[in-house]
Order: sequence, then structure tokens, then C-alpha cells
Amino acid sequence: MIKLDFEKTNGLIPAIAQDYRSGEVLMLGFMNSRAFEKTIETKKATYFSRSRQALWTKGEISGHVQNVKEIRVDCDNDTILLKVDQVGGAACHKGYKSCFFSKVQESDLKIVESKVFDPKKVYKK
Amino acid sequence: MIKLDFEKTNGLIPAIAQDYRSGEVLMLGFMNSRAFEKTIETKKATYFSRSRQALWTKGEISGHVQNVKEIRVDCDNDTILLKVDQVGGAACHKGYKSCFFSKVQESDLKIVESKVFDPKKVYKK
Repeated sequence: MIKLDFEKTNGLIPAIAQDYRSGEVLMLGFMNSRAFEKTIETKKATYFSRSRQALWTKGEISGHVQNVKEIRVDCDNDTILLKVDQVGGAACHKGYKSCFFSKVQESDLKIVESKVFDPKKVYKK
Repeated sequence: MIKLDFEKTNGLIPAIAQDYRSGEVLMLGFMNSRAFEKTIETKKATYFSRSRQALWTKGEISGHVQNVKEIRVDCDNDTILLKVDQVGGAACHKGYKSCFFSKVQESDLKIVESKVFDPKKVYKK
């Protein structure tokens, strides 16, 4: 049995998604215990949306799911690292491969990556 | 000016440290605004220790500081990614290069990395 420390941060622990091939860090979400179980069961990254207060399988709208290749847990059992195969090649809802497309530079943030898709086309209904 | 969203999680946001050469994810800590400022000023990763409720410059005891090569911020301005040069080659206080040395395998956690140093020798006082 795997016992993670969900208590320290009110039931939610951070989960990092990393491209399993390139090592690029794609995004960070939060998981409650149910999201963690569902991720193991389905092998698709499932987070807990703090804004919607509900389970959120990444890619359920965009189709850009994260197929989980490996799950790591840190030394304090309070952070998760997912090594994923990112469908569509992009994790960020703003169209970038990684959510970390901005760099701290001269006391400001500068976008240093290029968009992979147009969010207006992917998220249209 | 860089405005991060420290409010969402009571003044603390997650900060991922990644080896700037290999891309390996080393650890995750939390930062308050002062820790973030100090990291930019000193170019050494400084976190906020939740257990000690104080600023914590990584490596202040072990000497294993993290020299910050680049700082990324995510699309919601609520997560930080540090690309670091990890002095001593190991970030984890248990002696491993990365804190994520355990893998989820058959409903259990299995250690899949080797220790780089002996914590008893590094942390002896």
C-alpha cells in the first residue's frame, strides 16, 4: 500500500508532469487521494481542480491527455512526479508545450517559447 | 515587475528544482514572496520551510546549494521552475541525487535510485 501525506496541505499534494522522453517539465497540478488512485488505475493523469473543486482528467476537453509512463513519489511522500507521454505535444491550455513558457529576465517575465497550437481552435465548442 | 499569485495558497507557491543540464527533477519546495525575491537576488535557491516556518536557503547545512541558472514561471503565475546547478550532485537530504527516488510499482513504492552521499556524514554536527 502506498501512503502519501495528503494531510500536510489540506488533502491536496502537488503533482509535477514531466515529458518522459525529453525531461521537459510540462505543468504542475494538485491531486487528492482519489485523483492519485484514478491516475494509477487509468494511467491517465488526473488532477483535482482547485477552481472547480472537482476531479479533472487532463485533456478531457482538448484531447491532450497525458499517458502516464511512470510515477515517482518524493522522500517525504508529499509530492508526485509523473513521467508522461503528452498527447498533442502540448500541455498548456494557452497553446504552449509547457506551462513554463515565461522566464524571469531583468525584473520581468519574458515569453521564451513558441505556441504549438491555437487555443481558440482546440477549445472551441 | 513580476507579480506572482501568492494568495491562492496562503502565501506559498510550489517551486520545482530541475537539474539545468540533465533535466532531472530534483525536488519541490515552497516559496513565499521573500524567498522568491531572495532567490533572484542571490541566485541561490531559497525556499520557505513549512516545518520551521522560516526562510531556508537550500544547502545552508550540507553545503549542497543550488546555483540558479534560470527561473521560469507558469501560465497562471502560481508555480515556479528553477533550473539549477546542484552543488555536490545531490539535492535530497537522504543522500539521493533527486528526492524522487521511489517509483510506484505493483501498488507499492520501490527505491530505484542509488545514494550519492551518506547523510550521516554530511549532516553530522
